[in-house]
Amino acid sequence: MSTWVEVPKNSDFTIYNLPFGIFKSKKLSPRIGVAIGDKIVDLSVLDQEGLFSNLFFPEGIFLRDSLNELIALGKTQTKKIRERVQQLLLAENGELRDHSSRGKVMVNRKEAEMLLPVKIGDYTDFYSSIEHATNVGKMFRDPENALLPNWRHLPVGYHGRASSIVVSGTPIHRPKGQSKDPDMVMPEFGPSRRLDFELELAFITGKQTKLGDYVSTEDAEEYIFGFVLFNDWSARDIQNWEYVPLGPFLGKNFGSSISPWVVTLEAMEPFRVEGPKQEPEVLPYLKCRKSHSFDINLEVFIQPEGKKSSKVCASNFKYMYWNIAQQLAHHTVNGCNINVGDMMASGTISGPTEDSFGSMLELSWKGTRAVKLEDGEERKFIQDGDTVIMKGFAEKDGIRVGFGEVTGQILPAK
Amino acid sequence: MSTWVEVPKNSDFTIYNLPFGIFKSKKLSPRIGVAIGDKIVDLSVLDQEGLFSNLFFPEGIFLRDSLNELIALGKTQTKKIRERVQQLLLAENGELRDHSSRGKVMVNRKEAEMLLPVKIGDYTDFYSSIEHATNVGKMFRDPENALLPNWRHLPVGYHGRASSIVVSGTPIHRPKGQSKDPDMVMPEFGPSRRLDFELELAFITGKQTKLGDYVSTEDAEEYIFGFVLFNDWSARDIQNWEYVPLGPFLGKNFGSSISPWVVTLEAMEPFRVEGPKQEPEVLPYLKCRKSHSFDINLEVFIQPEGKKSSKVCASNFKYMYWNIAQQLAHHTVNGCNINVGDMMASGTISGPTEDSFGSMLELSWKGTRAVKLEDGEERKFIQDGDTVIMKGFAEKDGIRVGFGEVTGQILPAK
Repeated sequence: MSTWVEVPKNSDFTIYNLPFGIFKSKKLSPRIGVAIGDKIVDLSVLDQEGLFSNLFFPEGIFLRDSLNELIALGKTQTKKIRERVQQLLLAENGELRDHSSRGKVMVNRKEAEMLLPVKIGDYTDFYSSIEHATNVGKMFRDPENALLPNWRHLPVGYHGRASSIVVSGTPIHRPKGQSKDPDMVMPEFGPSRRLDFELELAFITGKQTKLGDYVSTEDAEEYIFGFVLFNDWSARDIQNWEYVPLGPFLGKNFGSSISPWVVTLEAMEPFRVEGPKQEPEVLPYLKCRKSHSFDINLEVFIQPEGKKSSKVCASNFKYMYWNIAQQLAHHTVNGCNINVGDMMASGTISGPTEDSFGSMLELSWKGTRAVKLEDGEERKFIQDGDTVIMKGFAEKDGIRVGFGEVTGQILPAK
Repeated sequence: MSTWVEVPKNSDFTIYNLPFGIFKSKKLSPRIGVAIGDKIVDLSVLDQEGLFSNLFFPEGIFLRDSLNELIALGKTQTKKIRERVQQLLLAENGELRDHSSRGKVMVNRKEAEMLLPVKIGDYTDFYSSIEHATNVGKMFRDPENALLPNWRHLPVGYHGRASSIVVSGTPIHRPKGQSKDPDMVMPEFGPSRRLDFELELAFITGKQTKLGDYVSTEDAEEYIFGFVLFNDWSARDIQNWEYVPLGPFLGKNFGSSISPWVVTLEAMEPFRVEGPKQEPEVLPYLKCRKSHSFDINLEVFIQPEGKKSSKVCASNFKYMYWNIAQQLAHHTVNGCNINVGDMMASGTISGPTEDSFGSMLELSWKGTRAVKLEDGEERKFIQDGDTVIMKGFAEKDGIRVGFGEVTGQILPAK
């Protein structure tokens, strides 16, 4: 496929991708767009101009400030929308290319401000990378017995805070909180001293279930609309003091950042790969008939204020031990209901090598070694003024489908 | 104060209470009402009839299917609404009593179906009863050292699932899931064998904060609209196998039940009492200038299918070690933002005596002793067909303010 839109080399937003997002500009109220190259296709204008031809939608569906209603139309509809946009962008198709409203339809990405793409109902964070769980176990528990007994039997997960999930570019203040190092008698209060990122990918649910119902691994993908990059900011010192016995709370809920463009499951299809072998065999409700893993390159960069950015991690989504279908089947096997716009994040995605660890905790091995950056900088954890940038893209047979990036700068504690 | 409405003796819904809820009936679409005796004041009709006199509201504000928009008007407004309703119900006031539309305004509670009162944004569950935390620590950890090191320093809490919170009366299917008793080699899958309730009270937030902002203990009550009874259903076997290290997940998120009437903080004012002394001294951000504890009697009943109900627990909200102001201050001290309609539950409210423990786990001491019920029945955990009923009321100087009840029947696993 080729398109009449100029798509820069190495653009994540090719004709094969066409992710959905919410944007606004000085002139435009919030609305739904599809990214291609350095442009955004304004779906509301496309609709006004009758360019969806024989597709019909509830009025104003593209003039919303979230994708939820659009997603709720169902996969059959959203697939048709994406396919129609793709058709209109094909090199050989003149319908939009030669349309008098083309200028109104095609918005420059530079001039657009991206908003949070979905109103998030509930947010769940899994812990599905075996390399990450093993690293954490080695550091904080028993190096010889790093994985906890339940880990290989179920995709461990917990509920996170939905309200503090923000779109890429939103600065985050360093959180304050209680912490207590082992050598301290009493806890102290102050800005976190061990602020970290976690490299994750999250999926957004696209279909509701009723309380008591269950989604099988076989049906799971019908309930998944798409993916975003997810930075699960973590304050290690706060987390460490609070998390026993009920799990992470203030060490996480001061903010999580996501990329603005939701890459559909359909766009990820060419990048499906076999996942890791699971040993011991999983229980029947977690077995899969086909592969639900995807080969997606993931990178993390740190950019100290006013300096160059340095790549500190190169990982891949394919390392995930537990896949998205297993995560969703597990989440609902007890009857827990899901809504359109729920977000389920993978947990930190670490790979097998030291340069593929998805958090500073692992990269600096609990702060025992400094990670070298450009310009003579080095880091054990994230400093005030640092911007953390995560990127993700899949590439195969000349086809590239990417996420753009999720960035966030850490501001000093308030 | 006395009212012209007939209020049965021991009614929770006195002229001093006036809780808000969402109801509908065969003839009426969902709307906002205030409970008094066996009646509901239909606020939408009150408004249509001009009975709010000099109060003015956004159109249709009382014809919503959740209280969120009403609550978002702010405490000044909602206080005025409640005070005006109170005024209209006073024995000596003829405005509504003698009004031609009185019959339309006053709906029989029996004919109304109560709906979930708020659209819940995020749901947080605390763990703030020292008796409960001590009991759990004695059972599962070290009887001599039952409380974990962090417990007296911060109100431990975690995020729960908002989507599966249901209104009183909604049946819940016994959840299925993985569990592994210590003597088993591999986990097994099936219906939970140790299904439990947790007696809790939850507050609903009434005012938004921005990400990065913090609510002090002094300001906290400005952000709290009111309370509901909360049954945090728990599958102990599922919870036990999954919860290390990231906390409860499927052992909890198959359902939580709340009472339909939101009792305002203002109605609770006469029942304010000193809370337990906190030792060691808490960090400055958790110190309170005034008391934020309330003397609220709480009771739990179990009713086997087709049999009498038996009281199994009588506890009190005043036992809570950590109060609502401390919970909210802690929750936001790292900058975590809250929205109108967030729900923050207390955690199981156990008292000091064995008959005041707020869960079967404690009442049956981990299933080692049976709890006697009427009709020769006994229980260690909840059986299929059982209905669990929780009640709550405060009483002082002849004034009674209560919650009604939250009930839920357990149906067999699907």
